[in-house]
Amino acid sequence: MSITNKTLIFKKAPTSGLPIAGEHLIVADLGPFDPSTPPPPGGVTLSILQASLDPFLTDKMRDPSIESYTPAYTLNGPVTNDAVARIIQSSAPGFAPGDLILGNLPFAEYTVLDAASVTSEIRAVLPNPFNWQGHDLGLFLGPLGIAGLTAWSALYEIGKPKAGETIFISSAAGAVGQMVGQIAKREGMRVIGSVGSEEKLKFVVEELGFDGGFNYKEEEAGEALKRLAPEGVDIYFDNVGGAQLDAALWAMNERGRIIACGMITQYNRDPKDWDGVKNLLCLVDKRLVMRGFIVADPDFGAAYLKDHQTKMHQWLADGSIKAKLDVTEGLENATQGLLDLFTGKNFGKAVLKIKDE
Amino acid sequence: MSITNKTLIFKKAPTSGLPIAGEHLIVADLGPFDPSTPPPPGGVTLSILQASLDPFLTDKMRDPSIESYTPAYTLNGPVTNDAVARIIQSSAPGFAPGDLILGNLPFAEYTVLDAASVTSEIRAVLPNPFNWQGHDLGLFLGPLGIAGLTAWSALYEIGKPKAGETIFISSAAGAVGQMVGQIAKREGMRVIGSVGSEEKLKFVVEELGFDGGFNYKEEEAGEALKRLAPEGVDIYFDNVGGAQLDAALWAMNERGRIIACGMITQYNRDPKDWDGVKNLLCLVDKRLVMRGFIVADPDFGAAYLKDHQTKMHQWLADGSIKAKLDVTEGLENATQGLLDLFTGKNFGKAVLKIKDE
Repeated sequence: MSITNKTLIFKKAPTSGLPIAGEHLIVADLGPFDPSTPPPPGGVTLSILQASLDPFLTDKMRDPSIESYTPAYTLNGPVTNDAVARIIQSSAPGFAPGDLILGNLPFAEYTVLDAASVTSEIRAVLPNPFNWQGHDLGLFLGPLGIAGLTAWSALYEIGKPKAGETIFISSAAGAVGQMVGQIAKREGMRVIGSVGSEEKLKFVVEELGFDGGFNYKEEEAGEALKRLAPEGVDIYFDNVGGAQLDAALWAMNERGRIIACGMITQYNRDPKDWDGVKNLLCLVDKRLVMRGFIVADPDFGAAYLKDHQTKMHQWLADGSIKAKLDVTEGLENATQGLLDLFTGKNFGKAVLKIKDE
Repeated sequence: MSITNKTLIFKKAPTSGLPIAGEHLIVADLGPFDPSTPPPPGGVTLSILQASLDPFLTDKMRDPSIESYTPAYTLNGPVTNDAVARIIQSSAPGFAPGDLILGNLPFAEYTVLDAASVTSEIRAVLPNPFNWQGHDLGLFLGPLGIAGLTAWSALYEIGKPKAGETIFISSAAGAVGQMVGQIAKREGMRVIGSVGSEEKLKFVVEELGFDGGFNYKEEEAGEALKRLAPEGVDIYFDNVGGAQLDAALWAMNERGRIIACGMITQYNRDPKDWDGVKNLLCLVDKRLVMRGFIVADPDFGAAYLKDHQTKMHQWLADGSIKAKLDVTEGLENATQGLLDLFTGKNFGKAVLKIKDE
């Protein structure tokens, strides 16, 4: 039985800004694919169900001669990222047909991994079946995936949360922000978030239990922080950079910590057009620390992985932590799902559903 | 015998920018002063010889209702800072006439401390006599004073120097910069400095042994760093902020450390006129850390004090570390000596010589 194997292909590097569907990213059928063909010795055949959509993927869509913190995608090769897949055939010890796995996989309907790739690309066998929060596989890409580990490790490693202190989180309804806020609440912090719509504001305050929030499109961040955190900010979890970072620097308390997780307002712009941030003297006067990180660094996220996985599984199962997913359906819509991250159109952790099984 | 006791008085807070001699700072004679009058029980009578001129003093010349990291000067009270004085009378145990001491003292010819002030304001009894590098008392205010401890503690605590790495130091001929560079050379680092004149450039390269340097007035910092540190910068010791900070962010290597020691280009300006720094996304992409500090914090400088004092005494005595002092003579010229720090007119650690004995 031969079937299609549609795959999202990196065709051309955008010369400036974001990819355009059909020009820089195309969906091609790499089939015919016969799922009954046995995998190579020690390998597996996978049906790929859901993949994670993250802003950093656009950084990989570049001319490979440009160096960056993350390897570039290969031209004419597939877009890859964390994905959940079901094993349909296996000759790899420890992996059985029917198992759900999490790994670094192509945005495709199917893939075959050889023995070496099983070792290098598959990160975990997932609980199967599981029955938390709508049985949604996207949970493994959001709160239990890189976004959740990013929130967890950066909050503890750089933020050092203390009960009674105040944390301000930008992009608070996003994949990382919603987790940071809920973990911070568990640590007894006062939690303030910024979002880009009234609907998201309602979500973080009413559903996630944040102490306050504002819509940055409606209220200037500096004014909002005066109103919401008159006692100052102790931790700023920065996902956006630019004007909100500037306002946070001004609002920080002495010995505050700024977690430089991402700056979505600055991505995909020519560096000479990056926003100027004025309040850096606050770093000196208030002896602040500001630190960037890469969660995949062996000395960063990995140290927190066990704690994160154990507790997050439990909290998702008992419903005490909520996760909002934003699902894009179908490989044809993958590029648009990715672009939505840059306009704030997504609401929650963005995942691409490739197929149901 | 009654004599004059001229003192530098904080008369009025500058509403914007820097103090003007005769308007915001005046020299008044608080005498007649009789040095033969015995000090109070447990107190001392001091003849003040040299005082330290530092940029942060201008931050203390503010309306006391404005909060900052350092207490404001009292209106109509003396300007105070670290100073070297000779004890001319003592009823304090452990302090004898003729001793040289280092303490927080008024910019005045003489002062009398009561027992409580002896405890709170005198920090050290100095070697007496000493015979290093011209017998200059200013050494206790520069390399052995706050500037030296700032260089030492911040380089080790935040910079974490490693042999073979590259450090870039702005204001490299200044009080702190010249010490940072020489300590970093001892740690086996490659040392690059920026200065504001050809004379200073010659000094840091030829006399202090820096590996390279540039005059920021003649060469754009980004171009200079490409030329002088093509392999990138691992530690940036920032004394200036603004354009040089921006260039350093761009030039940093992965996991670089930025020591936010001061930003002299931003001081005494309305915050809304502070320079915008564009390259903060580099903090994320290159997982940098940038940290401000106050050397006087008990958990910062104090941890390094013993090591700093022991080794710096030894290196100054054996001549293996050099210290350049910029001496302003006389209380009447104190304000100008302070202003020179903001135009870069000083060359080396700025001290005010009040009198010879």
